[in-house]
Amino acid sequence: MHSPRLKAARRLTKRAFRQRERAFLAEGPQAVAAAFHCGAQVSDLFVTVPARSRHQDLVGQIADAGIPVHVVSGEVMDELAQTVTPQGLLAVCGFVDVPLAPVLGARPGLVALLANVRDPGNAGTVLRTADAAGAGAVVFADATVDPYNGKCVRASAGSLFHLPVVAGARLGEAVDALREAGLRVVAADGRAGCSLDDPGVRDRLAQPTAWMFGNEAWGLPPELIALADEPVAVPIYGQAESLNLAAAAAVCLYASARAQRVQAIIRQDVI
Amino acid sequence: MHSPRLKAARRLTKRAFRQRERAFLAEGPQAVAAAFHCGAQVSDLFVTVPARSRHQDLVGQIADAGIPVHVVSGEVMDELAQTVTPQGLLAVCGFVDVPLAPVLGARPGLVALLANVRDPGNAGTVLRTADAAGAGAVVFADATVDPYNGKCVRASAGSLFHLPVVAGARLGEAVDALREAGLRVVAADGRAGCSLDDPGVRDRLAQPTAWMFGNEAWGLPPELIALADEPVAVPIYGQAESLNLAAAAAVCLYASARAQRVQAIIRQDVI
Repeated sequence: MHSPRLKAARRLTKRAFRQRERAFLAEGPQAVAAAFHCGAQVSDLFVTVPARSRHQDLVGQIADAGIPVHVVSGEVMDELAQTVTPQGLLAVCGFVDVPLAPVLGARPGLVALLANVRDPGNAGTVLRTADAAGAGAVVFADATVDPYNGKCVRASAGSLFHLPVVAGARLGEAVDALREAGLRVVAADGRAGCSLDDPGVRDRLAQPTAWMFGNEAWGLPPELIALADEPVAVPIYGQAESLNLAAAAAVCLYASARAQRVQAIIRQDVI
Repeated sequence: MHSPRLKAARRLTKRAFRQRERAFLAEGPQAVAAAFHCGAQVSDLFVTVPARSRHQDLVGQIADAGIPVHVVSGEVMDELAQTVTPQGLLAVCGFVDVPLAPVLGARPGLVALLANVRDPGNAGTVLRTADAAGAGAVVFADATVDPYNGKCVRASAGSLFHLPVVAGARLGEAVDALREAGLRVVAADGRAGCSLDDPGVRDRLAQPTAWMFGNEAWGLPPELIALADEPVAVPIYGQAESLNLAAAAAVCLYASARAQRVQAIIRQDVI
């Protein structure tokens, strides 16, 4: 198959073409279903014969919606999906990111802010975890990887379509806007003097919070930590030097989610 | 360089040879330093010229200990390290895993039990997180990936050498032994009726606990959940269907670590 649609889709494996077309590839049934059901602009679906029978309902719904469905060989799918074990289903989607201002207008209580996170798998996992923890948005700032990178989309397991994602933000401006919207900005920093275990930190996490996460190898440099209201460490009880970024983000985001819910229960009791 | 030592090291990229020699490859300065300082049997060190000058102290200490240091080209290192960006330093180490019985004799308060975790990166990240959370052991059970797989060693970031690791355990036997040693066995299960948020669950996590984690794609099947004292979910507040295994494990292990520490503080207050 050498159709113009396939040629166009193939180009979207490269960031420059994604930026130009404002479109990207979402691979696997989870991502395709999330894209379709969450209202993303799906312009084409590529499917292998085995995947078409395995995901008959989803493929049928997409075809019924008037979206062109192209049956391709396993080899073509391998090339488009750029993964070792593609699941045979891949959608061309329009960009879904949104500007920060309207997101903040909805007064989110929890936001994840990625500062120079370079590994797409890590960024996608944090996006998925932020979704699970009930975050109102994820902001990809400064030199953070493109959220539409295939590995990031895959690691997000559909979450890219579930909650507002802000792409290409400038960190300093994002911090100012978040603070303006009433969020405390907390920098996740393994070297911070206080940790998630400190009762004061827990109390403050009950307030609307934006967690800032840094690069997987070197964390947040002092000049970025200085932008935050407070640096906080995940406590290390063993001999590990640090946590993996996605693991640290999970502990931090869930600490906030829990602190905010406990606070809400206390408030209800008072009323 | 085509020395017998290099040839022997090259073989250790394959599991069958690792099992036969009871030796494996630890790549990168973090893993090499942990192996050397934590008392693992290091029999050879391979190093590139740039890495030798970058990690002069570590290489010097290893040479001073009478361990043969072999300088190799970047190409040879690439092949041994099996990673996209090797850090130029690689040690041949003897196996470090230990039997379960003596580990349980030390009465650990927190254990991670991996049941059929297939992705080496996930397994290594859980090992690193368990170390950070202060776990007393990590048990690799049933069809779980080999802890000496290069990707697992790398993802563990030295933690493989920090805490007791039990390899090749049978899940049913491990659960019996853990329970015998006074640990409650809790299965991490996204479909469980109760979650980490339930006050009863939090109270119970203050007791010595072994967390059972299942396969990254399909979790724990009912027959394995049935082995545990209780299944517990990480609560999902957003639209994500589930969490990534390593993220879920981080939230669970830190929930235990915190519950046990809060409990210890309450006990001290009472005394």
